[in-house]
Amino acid sequence: MKQSLIPEYINNLSPYKSGKPIEELAREKNLTKITKLASNENPLGPSPLAIKEMTNALWDVHRYPDMNAYELKTQLCELYNLDIKNVVVGNGSEGIMGYIARAFIQPGDEVLTAENTFIGFHILAKCSGSKIIMTKRTSDYRYDVNALINKISDKTKIIYIANPDNPTGTYIKESEFNRLMSHVPKHTIVILDEAYFEYGQFFEWDYPDSMNYKFDNVITLRTFSKAYGISGIRVGYGFAHEHFIQALHKVKLPFEPSLIAQKGAIGAIKDYPHLERSLTTNAKGMRKLVQYLEENGFSPIKSVTNFLTIPLKSEIEADYLYEELLNTGVIIRPLKANNMPSYIRISIGSRGEMQHLYESFDNILPKFKTKFGNL
Amino acid sequence: MKQSLIPEYINNLSPYKSGKPIEELAREKNLTKITKLASNENPLGPSPLAIKEMTNALWDVHRYPDMNAYELKTQLCELYNLDIKNVVVGNGSEGIMGYIARAFIQPGDEVLTAENTFIGFHILAKCSGSKIIMTKRTSDYRYDVNALINKISDKTKIIYIANPDNPTGTYIKESEFNRLMSHVPKHTIVILDEAYFEYGQFFEWDYPDSMNYKFDNVITLRTFSKAYGISGIRVGYGFAHEHFIQALHKVKLPFEPSLIAQKGAIGAIKDYPHLERSLTTNAKGMRKLVQYLEENGFSPIKSVTNFLTIPLKSEIEADYLYEELLNTGVIIRPLKANNMPSYIRISIGSRGEMQHLYESFDNILPKFKTKFGNL
Repeated sequence: MKQSLIPEYINNLSPYKSGKPIEELAREKNLTKITKLASNENPLGPSPLAIKEMTNALWDVHRYPDMNAYELKTQLCELYNLDIKNVVVGNGSEGIMGYIARAFIQPGDEVLTAENTFIGFHILAKCSGSKIIMTKRTSDYRYDVNALINKISDKTKIIYIANPDNPTGTYIKESEFNRLMSHVPKHTIVILDEAYFEYGQFFEWDYPDSMNYKFDNVITLRTFSKAYGISGIRVGYGFAHEHFIQALHKVKLPFEPSLIAQKGAIGAIKDYPHLERSLTTNAKGMRKLVQYLEENGFSPIKSVTNFLTIPLKSEIEADYLYEELLNTGVIIRPLKANNMPSYIRISIGSRGEMQHLYESFDNILPKFKTKFGNL
Repeated sequence: MKQSLIPEYINNLSPYKSGKPIEELAREKNLTKITKLASNENPLGPSPLAIKEMTNALWDVHRYPDMNAYELKTQLCELYNLDIKNVVVGNGSEGIMGYIARAFIQPGDEVLTAENTFIGFHILAKCSGSKIIMTKRTSDYRYDVNALINKISDKTKIIYIANPDNPTGTYIKESEFNRLMSHVPKHTIVILDEAYFEYGQFFEWDYPDSMNYKFDNVITLRTFSKAYGISGIRVGYGFAHEHFIQALHKVKLPFEPSLIAQKGAIGAIKDYPHLERSLTTNAKGMRKLVQYLEENGFSPIKSVTNFLTIPLKSEIEADYLYEELLNTGVIIRPLKANNMPSYIRISIGSRGEMQHLYESFDNILPKFKTKFGNL
C-alpha cells in the first residue's frame, strides 16, 4: 500500500554508500589504530583559520545563516575575479547538483556522462525522471570525448563531466574540452564538476580551469571538501551565467550553507599556506604510493587527484585486499557502487597513515601472491 | 537563449525572503543597537552543551559526516521512544521537505494546504511540477479542516499542514486532526510540519502530538531551529512509516546534516533545562507582548508559538510600522510574501530585546495614531 505512493523510479534507486566510518570499524573489529583512506579527505585536517572563524561563530548559531552568503561570496569573487551575480554557494558541490536537478531537469530529459564516474549526480538526475546515457571510457580510463559527442541528441539536457574524475583520477585536457564544447548544442547545459580542481591544476599544465572560459552554458562546481579539508561542514560553490544562477537561487533552500559552514569556508580561503601545504604533501604522498605499488607489481591508474585507483584481475582479488586491509585497521574504498568491482581506491593520507598502509600491505601481499599468483 | 533552458514553472518562482539580517540593517542605517525579532529564533541562544559538542568536533571537520547519523538518531529514538527505522534527519525540516518533494511528487500531482501558511514547501512542490490547492482560513485564522476535506481529490498526493502554523501562530486541535485523518484517502500523504511543536505542547493541552498516532501515511517533521535554538547549523528530523523513510534515504544527499550539525543537535537534546528555560521565558514574553499590544489597541492573533502576528487595517499601516521600527533598530517581519500584506509578525525576544521593542513602540504609536486614527 505505502509502496504504491512511491514512484517506481525512486523505489529502484540504491542509497549512496560512503567510506566505512572510523567508529564503525573500531566497534566491529575492536581495533584502536584506524587509518581511513576511503573518502579522499585532507589528511592535514582543517585550516586553523577555519577553526578560528567557526569557533567565533558558535555562540551565534541560534541565528539563521545569511541567506545571501554575502561575505563568503565576496571572498570567492576576490579569489577568482568573479562577479557576485555569477556565484552560487550550497551544501557541498553535491548540494548545488541538487539545485541543478530541481531547476533544470524535467521527465524525459537525457543526461549524458561517462560510465564509472561520480554517482551522486546520477541519483539526483534519476529522481527528476531523466534518462542517463553513459559512454564507455578510453583504454586509459579517461572520458572519451568523441563518444560523448556522438551521443549528444535533441533531448540532451545536461552533460555531466567530473574533471578531474572520481574514482578514476584522470582528467580531460584543455584541447579535448575545447573540442567537446564546439559540439555542444545550445539546448544543452554542461556541468563541470571540479571537486578536485586544485589537485588537477597543481599536477598538470594542460588541465582546463573552466572558470577561464566563461561559456554561457557551462556550470562549474567546486568544493571546500577536498583540498580545503572541511568536508564535515558541507560547503561548495558554483559559477555560471547569471540566468542560471538566478534560477538556482529560486529553487535552493534559503539557509544553505549553514552559518558555521560559511564561516569555516571564509577562514579556509584566507589560509593559502594551508592549501599549498595540503597540495605539496599530497604530491609527495602520491609519488611514494605509486612507486610502492609499482614495485609490488600493481598498475595504478595515473591520477591527478588525492587518490589512486588500482585495477586488479578480479572482484575476488579486490574484495580480498579490502577485507585484509580492514583487518589491520586500514579502510580503503571498494568500487562496486561505481560498477568497477575489480578495482580498489586508496586516498593519499598523512605520512603516518601511509606508513600504516605500507606495513599492512607488507604483511598482506605475500599471502595475496600465494593465493592469487603474481599481479 | 539561456532562459529557454529553464522550465517556465521555475522562471515563475520568486526566491524566498528571510528576515532582514542584523549586519545589513546596521550597514544601511548606521545603527549600533539592533534587535532582530523577525525570524522566530531562540533569544536565549544555543545550549552550552551544544556549543561544547560542536567545539570538540571542530578539528575533525576534514572528515565527512556520519551518513547514518547513528548517534543523533539514537538520541532521538530515546527521547521519543522511536525505532531507528522510522527516523530521518536532514538540514532543518525544510531539508527533509526537499527529500519529500524529490521522492514523492510527480508532475500533475496536487498538493493541498491552506492559504498564508509556511511557503517553503510550496516552492519545493512547484519545482516538482505539482499544482498547489489552497483553502481559505477560518475567521480566527486557523486551518479550516472542513474546507481541506472538501478539496481532497483523486490527484491529492500531499496534504501539507503546519501545526502550529507559521505565520498565523494558530493550531489544529486534536479532535480536528482526528476528523481530517478519517477523511484522508490511502493515496494521500499528510505532512505535519511541527517546527513549533515544543511551544504548542507547552501552551495547549489539546495540541495533537502527531508522533503519538503513528498513522501509516503521516510524515511528522520537526526542527532544532526553534525551541532548541540552533537554526544556524541546520538540523531537522522526520518520523514516518519505514517505507517512506527508506524512500527518503534513497533520494537524500548522503552527508546531510553536517558533522557539526549532528554534534550540536546531540548536545542540544541532552540539555533539557535549556529547553525548559527557553519555553518558560517565551511564555512570559508572549504574555507581556499580548498585554502591551492589547492595551495599545491592537488585536494580535492568539498564538501558541514564539511569535505573534498582528492584523492592521491596511498594507500602508503595516509598512509604516515595519519601517518606523527599522529606523529605531528593531527588525520585525512584514508578511507580504505570505500574501498577508496588512499584517506584521513579531518574534518573542529576550527581556532586553522586548524592552527595545516597547520603547520603540512608545515613540512610534502617537505618530501612528495621528496619521491613521485609532486602531
